[in-house]
Amino acid sequence: MDIMQSSLKKHYEWKGKIEVISRCEVNDREQLSNAYTPGVAQPCLEIEKNPDLSYDLTRRANLVAVITDGTAVLGLGDIGPRASMPVMEGKCALFKEFAGVDAFPICVNSKDVDEIVRTIELISYSFGGINLEDISAPRCFEIERRLKEKLDIPVFHDDQHGTAIVASAAMLNAAKVCGKRIEDMTLVINGAGAAGCAIAKQFLSLGIKDIIMVDIKGIICDGDEFENPSHYEMAKLTNKDHRRGGLTDALKGADAFIGVSKPNLVTQDMVRSMADKPIIFAMANPTPEIMPDLAKEAGAFVVGTGRSDFPNQINNVIAFPGVFKGALAVRAKDINEEMKRAAAYAIAGAVSPDKLSAEYILPDAFDKNIANIIAEAVADAAVKSGIARITK
Amino acid sequence: MDIMQSSLKKHYEWKGKIEVISRCEVNDREQLSNAYTPGVAQPCLEIEKNPDLSYDLTRRANLVAVITDGTAVLGLGDIGPRASMPVMEGKCALFKEFAGVDAFPICVNSKDVDEIVRTIELISYSFGGINLEDISAPRCFEIERRLKEKLDIPVFHDDQHGTAIVASAAMLNAAKVCGKRIEDMTLVINGAGAAGCAIAKQFLSLGIKDIIMVDIKGIICDGDEFENPSHYEMAKLTNKDHRRGGLTDALKGADAFIGVSKPNLVTQDMVRSMADKPIIFAMANPTPEIMPDLAKEAGAFVVGTGRSDFPNQINNVIAFPGVFKGALAVRAKDINEEMKRAAAYAIAGAVSPDKLSAEYILPDAFDKNIANIIAEAVADAAVKSGIARITK
Repeated sequence: MDIMQSSLKKHYEWKGKIEVISRCEVNDREQLSNAYTPGVAQPCLEIEKNPDLSYDLTRRANLVAVITDGTAVLGLGDIGPRASMPVMEGKCALFKEFAGVDAFPICVNSKDVDEIVRTIELISYSFGGINLEDISAPRCFEIERRLKEKLDIPVFHDDQHGTAIVASAAMLNAAKVCGKRIEDMTLVINGAGAAGCAIAKQFLSLGIKDIIMVDIKGIICDGDEFENPSHYEMAKLTNKDHRRGGLTDALKGADAFIGVSKPNLVTQDMVRSMADKPIIFAMANPTPEIMPDLAKEAGAFVVGTGRSDFPNQINNVIAFPGVFKGALAVRAKDINEEMKRAAAYAIAGAVSPDKLSAEYILPDAFDKNIANIIAEAVADAAVKSGIARITK
Repeated sequence: MDIMQSSLKKHYEWKGKIEVISRCEVNDREQLSNAYTPGVAQPCLEIEKNPDLSYDLTRRANLVAVITDGTAVLGLGDIGPRASMPVMEGKCALFKEFAGVDAFPICVNSKDVDEIVRTIELISYSFGGINLEDISAPRCFEIERRLKEKLDIPVFHDDQHGTAIVASAAMLNAAKVCGKRIEDMTLVINGAGAAGCAIAKQFLSLGIKDIIMVDIKGIICDGDEFENPSHYEMAKLTNKDHRRGGLTDALKGADAFIGVSKPNLVTQDMVRSMADKPIIFAMANPTPEIMPDLAKEAGAFVVGTGRSDFPNQINNVIAFPGVFKGALAVRAKDINEEMKRAAAYAIAGAVSPDKLSAEYILPDAFDKNIANIIAEAVADAAVKSGIARITK
């Protein structure tokens, strides 16, 4: 049975991949009086006096909402809120399984940015953090930006920042394997959607100076006209030499390629045109921009994909559980650049030097201690950057 | 330690009374591929083709949202969304403990009816039912009415209907104990807020013909002017003899009193003025309209209160878990009058005739089989009244 049919069968068996359980027993009058009326009035009154106690007296301190509008679900596109729910529940299951973080899935039945922002704002007191998921670009940028302004809890669009964190952790280790300094590298990012733009910004934050972004119309260059408003910002931040042309031109002499685009866009000749020891992260799903064996044959030194059946899977699940665990641990008001950078370094550092190789640049996704390592680094970064509410 | 302080201490220990857990293991690549990408695409596509499959392939079929705006919390009033959360979590814990129904608490940070309705509408695809809680009157009426129109899942304001169901179950048995026919009784309801109005309607639906509602300004009578718009409706439905005056006048010759009002409003003389074998449900919290010993001394034959330290506690927890369990079992599109009536009769019938007495008119709240008995009756009523999606 193929994975699609086996997953469907499992979903019929699971009847939901998450479950809400009670943490208190209610078997007699005394227990009922503590958990509910009349005793419950006391924690209510304490929170009314001091709203921060909502973190101590309710589940909020360990609770993330996973929220979508169902407009950009996996590779499936705009399948709507109900049909997106299996993905959201899966994400919530991963939060719990990998980091012990409670996560609850909510699909919003609107595509209107104002309505989505307002809905999330109005329910945000119920949660300690908001994980935005599978919202189409460029709407996802504005929704995240406005929510970050309005809310004093972490808001994190995982398709952007989770992907960027894992890709940069992988690049930090790939550079080590190739003996290159990350600051000296020239990096080509193909695909300038939500993930591509977030990856570019994350790499700039890590100290890479020379990034070229390529979209369907070619290299993004300052001075050009763009349909997507975020490309104006990217044009200012990247391509400092004002190069022009397409992917073929961009890749000539480049040290690394990151694809968040479409299958089979990279040829072996393109790989051959790159600098010595080229790094190829071909992350298009399910078929990469170039298959690993072809890339290797053409001289690629390190190859990563989004797939679990090749080495070096660049998979968000390595990052988001630990990132939120760390942010929640210190009640951070946001997930900022410092925290994302700390997460990337923590992931890269979790691969021990004796294991690090061209075939092993990321820690094992199923090592459930990784989330703790990331969480500690993220919490420290939150405290140091002054956005933590508590320090423990 | 008093119950308030012991509850507070427990709340600090619990760190939240609910928890979201995973129903699937994610320990290796195959499990990850089934629960998440790439396999999860298949259940998504199935739901996209047939949205009803969201009940089979996600948690929706067993999941209720417990939603408040924090404006009428217990006897505490408008304490705001964050401070209301311990009550909402408590309610969710009871749903799970008493009926196995998953329930998730959401507090909405708005008092605007339009915004609250729209917010709940937009997130409703994530749930199988909506339990409205602790929303102030008259806003609660309009919010519930509009949501019932818009949504094809059950919407149930427990402060109204849960209370009404349990009070009417208690009255059915109290009437039996007194040897009275419910159709012949005259009933006085003191307090014409959300609960009082719902109780009146529920009793009319059970066949009681003569109800007198009394509010702070006296007996509600058709032809008068009212501040609360729902009182015009109540004036048409009740007080068929156009009686006038206050509570003292209303109670003369009445068979039963139901108070959802304020402490100590009923005197012993008022009880003495009632018909033979008077029934007194003094449900004001924490202090009843008349204390049970005083009522008994003045001749009350059956006395119930909202309190657990006297016999005959009229407690919502007997009803709502089973009501939703039944509605969810057949994927009812609503919780209608037939289902509420069925719940009241099921609760009354769950007290075996050999146990029924003036001191024992309701089943034990901690008998966890009661929810199943109610659920079966409610599910049957949903099927018979044509609003069930499935029949199992």
